Amino acid sequence: MIEQVESDIQNLIDQIGYSDVTRLFDSLSGGKRLRAKLVLKIAASSSKSLRLAAIIELIHAASLLHDDVIDDAALRRGVPSVNATEDSKTAVMLGDVLYSKAFSELVHFSSSIASCIADSVTALSVGEMMDVTMAKTFNSDADAYMKMLYLKTATLIEASAKSAAMLAGKDAESYGIYGKNLGLSFQIIDDILDIVSDEATLGKPAMNDFAEGKCTLPYIYLYESLSSSDKERLQAYHGTVLTSRQNEWIRSKMEEYGSIDKAYCLARSLSDEAIKSIDGDAELIAIIEAMMKRSY
Amino acid sequence: MIEQVESDIQNLIDQIGYSDVTRLFDSLSGGKRLRAKLVLKIAASSSKSLRLAAIIELIHAASLLHDDVIDDAALRRGVPSVNATEDSKTAVMLGDVLYSKAFSELVHFSSSIASCIADSVTALSVGEMMDVTMAKTFNSDADAYMKMLYLKTATLIEASAKSAAMLAGKDAESYGIYGKNLGLSFQIIDDILDIVSDEATLGKPAMNDFAEGKCTLPYIYLYESLSSSDKERLQAYHGTVLTSRQNEWIRSKMEEYGSIDKAYCLARSLSDEAIKSIDGDAELIAIIEAMMKRSY
Repeated sequence: MIEQVESDIQNLIDQIGYSDVTRLFDSLSGGKRLRAKLVLKIAASSSKSLRLAAIIELIHAASLLHDDVIDDAALRRGVPSVNATEDSKTAVMLGDVLYSKAFSELVHFSSSIASCIADSVTALSVGEMMDVTMAKTFNSDADAYMKMLYLKTATLIEASAKSAAMLAGKDAESYGIYGKNLGLSFQIIDDILDIVSDEATLGKPAMNDFAEGKCTLPYIYLYESLSSSDKERLQAYHGTVLTSRQNEWIRSKMEEYGSIDKAYCLARSLSDEAIKSIDGDAELIAIIEAMMKRSY
Repeated sequence: MIEQVESDIQNLIDQIGYSDVTRLFDSLSGGKRLRAKLVLKIAASSSKSLRLAAIIELIHAASLLHDDVIDDAALRRGVPSVNATEDSKTAVMLGDVLYSKAFSELVHFSSSIASCIADSVTALSVGEMMDVTMAKTFNSDADAYMKMLYLKTATLIEASAKSAAMLAGKDAESYGIYGKNLGLSFQIIDDILDIVSDEATLGKPAMNDFAEGKCTLPYIYLYESLSSSDKERLQAYHGTVLTSRQNEWIRSKMEEYGSIDKAYCLARSLSDEAIKSIDGDAELIAIIEAMMKRSY
């Protein structure tokens, strides 16, 4: 089924009718297509659900293009990002083309589905701004972090599940909770992987989040546990490229205080809540379990 | 009436609920609000037409924010651009927020109106890419230039007029022709002003287009008229910052061959066609005449 989404995505790109767009889009790695898979699992395969899945993947691709410009990221999914191979302006323009094409197609859906997706893109854009603002200082507020993470990462996944449920006449609220919690857990696990994995596995430098100023949940939990002198030390490390010894110190302190386990447990409990909300749907449970297992 | 659009725009910005967005948006110059005025002239004032006008102005503001990032422009409407006062990433993010908020609101309109606007944003984004690609080499193809100009500048003005006509139950095709031709003439006049005005009037450096690699209509017409040795000279000047003597040479050659007059005549004939298509509407004729008079 996912092949049909790929071919529908290609159709939409071809409809744009500009060879530079086609060439640049073809150079992107499609990724796991988590959002498309979610739509198809919830709404079953039809021309409408395939199109909805394709639209959401275009939006996701656009957001990653702009995200990489904003973060000055050189790699995406292990391959050089468009802002690295071409330049930032090309990545901005390609993102704009993909966003607008997605919206052009979205208007053919019911206004509740179109609203659901469009509102999530607004949330996502605001979340991106919050992320950048929060990275300017050392943020130790877990609630503020979770709010940003919800907007930046979880809303589009929530909207994918919710809109697919609307399309299929299923309960949008329950599937929305599933999608939201899947998105939150997904990002928490991603944040953990940034700390516990090596560069080869990640396809980007390890422990990069903190160097970029991003105080993810394990760092916030660690900060809460540290003595005041160690708190100062951690704060001094924030937003700088660290030596392997300094990174080792952080990792060993996280080990000592169980900061990563604590973050993992939150992801686990969010996942459990997600599973509870969709009443035994084996395929959706499998998606969340596979996502959780990425880390361990 | 335009004050009501301003206050509706402010409402939409406030609804986003993020103080950084409000602060940054307030720092923008609203400009002439040409598109909003067009909507209100065609559709008369109602809550729907005010909202449509506000949405289109958000889209236009977003496109200018990204445009300035792509062109590395330091000034916009005589004041420093967001990419200059903050940074490029902030301008990208703010543009994304405005685009997505506009689309969130657009879904509450009929799908023909929403399609009309959304499709024009796709065209606009593709036009932006074309503009950048064309500026990399010396383009002497007037048709290719006009196609890019239609996509980049005229489609959103065309969509403003067309969607307002749809809202008011007027003939969308005729108003579409008016909007398209207004947009084309508007940009041709802008291109002329870049050559004949000084920096103080423009709010940005004069003869900047050609320095940026943009071969606008007067340059294309000039090129067509020049001897082969002068053709080479003009091509050699393309995409470089010129001395005032070199700029003077270009201006005098344009004078000699009537290149600016030729571009002006095209704008005039497009404006005449616009006027013909709306069957004597005095206010719309006044808009186009005021726009044409900017230059002389």
